[in-house]
Amino acid sequence: MIKARVTVTLKNGVLDPQGKAIGGALSTLGFSGVGSVRQGKVFDLELDGSDKAKAEDELKAMCEKLLANTVIEDYTVSVT
Amino acid sequence: MIKARVTVTLKNGVLDPQGKAIGGALSTLGFSGVGSVRQGKVFDLELDGSDKAKAEDELKAMCEKLLANTVIEDYTVSVT
Repeated sequence: MIKARVTVTLKNGVLDPQGKAIGGALSTLGFSGVGSVRQGKVFDLELDGSDKAKAEDELKAMCEKLLANTVIEDYTVSVT
Repeated sequence: MIKARVTVTLKNGVLDPQGKAIGGALSTLGFSGVGSVRQGKVFDLELDGSDKAKAEDELKAMCEKLLANTVIEDYTVSVT
């Protein structure tokens, strides 16, 4: 079994109102010196098999088809 | 300026219906051999200053207070 982590983040230049709200909330809570905050998603998957290269290809296909909106999001895949 | 990434994931044993739905959707799309899928959150922050140890402490405090629900979620902080 292969464990993998897929991280999906907004591309640079794409507005992130959710991240901005979190940054505002952190300031309100007294955390000073917080610059930009951007929120993304992480997926922890378990895949059958033991071929890591094949798993990585499959994970990239999953990102392109479902996990990420590639118009506005980047993704990284790490297989462990 | 310090860049940091905070990853928040559900604790083991906490049900993740969202992850289950994603797993089901992947199967429907033809990806076979997908076991468990669990979704988490990732925050990319920029902090003023250059003291990495202090930044890490501050980030942990942010997680405890706002970014994570420590009853059901774990968090990891990585400062780069």
